[in-house]
Amino acid sequence: MSLLVTGSIGIDTVKTPFGVSKDCLGGSAVYFSMAASFFTPVRFMGVVGADCPFSLKKVFKGRKVDLTGLEVREKSKTFRWAGSYQGLMNEARTDAVELNVLAESPPEMPEKFRDSKFVFLANTAPILQIRLLDQLKKPKFVAADTMNMWINNNPADLKRLLKKIDCIILNDGEARMLARDDNLIRAAAKIIKLGPSIAVIKKGEAGSIIRNAKGQMFILSAHPAEIVKDPTGAGDSFAGGFMGYLASRGKTDFASLKKAVAYGTVVASFTISDFSLKGLTKTSKRDIGKRLNQLRLMLKF
Amino acid sequence: MSLLVTGSIGIDTVKTPFGVSKDCLGGSAVYFSMAASFFTPVRFMGVVGADCPFSLKKVFKGRKVDLTGLEVREKSKTFRWAGSYQGLMNEARTDAVELNVLAESPPEMPEKFRDSKFVFLANTAPILQIRLLDQLKKPKFVAADTMNMWINNNPADLKRLLKKIDCIILNDGEARMLARDDNLIRAAAKIIKLGPSIAVIKKGEAGSIIRNAKGQMFILSAHPAEIVKDPTGAGDSFAGGFMGYLASRGKTDFASLKKAVAYGTVVASFTISDFSLKGLTKTSKRDIGKRLNQLRLMLKF
Repeated sequence: MSLLVTGSIGIDTVKTPFGVSKDCLGGSAVYFSMAASFFTPVRFMGVVGADCPFSLKKVFKGRKVDLTGLEVREKSKTFRWAGSYQGLMNEARTDAVELNVLAESPPEMPEKFRDSKFVFLANTAPILQIRLLDQLKKPKFVAADTMNMWINNNPADLKRLLKKIDCIILNDGEARMLARDDNLIRAAAKIIKLGPSIAVIKKGEAGSIIRNAKGQMFILSAHPAEIVKDPTGAGDSFAGGFMGYLASRGKTDFASLKKAVAYGTVVASFTISDFSLKGLTKTSKRDIGKRLNQLRLMLKF
Repeated sequence: MSLLVTGSIGIDTVKTPFGVSKDCLGGSAVYFSMAASFFTPVRFMGVVGADCPFSLKKVFKGRKVDLTGLEVREKSKTFRWAGSYQGLMNEARTDAVELNVLAESPPEMPEKFRDSKFVFLANTAPILQIRLLDQLKKPKFVAADTMNMWINNNPADLKRLLKKIDCIILNDGEARMLARDDNLIRAAAKIIKLGPSIAVIKKGEAGSIIRNAKGQMFILSAHPAEIVKDPTGAGDSFAGGFMGYLASRGKTDFASLKKAVAYGTVVASFTISDFSLKGLTKTSKRDIGKRLNQLRLMLKF
């Protein structure tokens, strides 16, 4: 079934113990689409300014990513982010950020995208996520990401959004903050009471938890990585693998959700193995399948 | 096969968000033995002072724990520890500690314990762990625990110990400190190079990792607990379930080690469900088997 993503396109500068990647392509919609396109065609929505040095057409060449929803604003500048990772590399430190086009109005949804069935609303102001959602005809499964800033500053908008979506994807710190509970298993249950029938909580190297409204749970360890060169985009790649698999199956029963979490985990493990999109672009669908089987074997007892 | 434990017996006072447990029974050898005795008979070694208000004979009544190695020193005082847990409850804050008998010489090993095949050296000064080990005739599988203090203050003794044991059981912070590496997968490999052929790294609610000298790995999530009343003894209960299962099988191949980690994980999940030993004493072997199957199901995809 059709899969739509709305999110950012960024010019990133990332510093990790393994080096510096200057002015490279990033952004949630980019990582998501690259990851999801292993599984299913993707409908892409995002905005850049006239200064964007990347041709997304070239970046996604050979992948089924429909760029009808890519908007180039001649008088605007592209979103820029500079960040660094140290020590455990679990969290990015933002060194500099220029919102630029992200502070303007969101892109218009192309008419032909309005019938999308699977939808991922990457992290942005919840009021914008609601407006994007309202342009859709009859989606089957909507997932959204959010972050600390909106949980703290825009709780009313976020609560309205949560009532309109099927699945929220958060990291552990955000889940604890949103639920006001340090225990992640309870936090997941409390978040589900706010609206979505499914909560996915990502815990970085500790893996992820998924819980549904019936109380069913699935826990998955991350793929054990000896080399983590650049964690940027891991969360959006996870979401891309997760939603890409679900859309490819057209199903959201719990068995499919579990397998989707596993695919999301594996795709993200390739993302963090190199800077920017290099970890994903050098990966094949076969590599993903192979690593999924390795992970399954490693977890069996 | 025979299983020997040497460790502490303590009078604990523990404060958690769920309440206070004053002057209750604790200590590594006590938690370990309670956990291991679900699987196999245990040979117990530890020292208390004349002030000890607990009868270990009564505590272990109906369980196969041989207390020949329990020494009561009439002129000494029992080890006391007071600690508290807050927020994520991942780490104890030590509020007060009186080493008492633990600062004296360790107990003598009873002659009939010297042929023990499976041995667990609970956390104490590595030089004492070596002395205990030297009294054994021909152990088959020796595991030890250690802590930050010894890693920092007694690295030479600890390195000698590591060359004499088969398995080291550490938490994530200790593993990072010992290996001087923030990445736990690499840290496990580096620790194995120091001597033991197996490293077990416990990550609290994030589960555990086991790695052997051949590079084989197993990752297990913790049992998802909505209620954690008192994490005290979780690590020693994990070690007890782990070593108890191995000793009961008499085997240490990787398949057995994986299952041992699973049993350790499940036994520890009962420990943390209530204060002091209450979580374990109200549990049956059948409960453990049932939860192991639940966990296996929850991890399957």
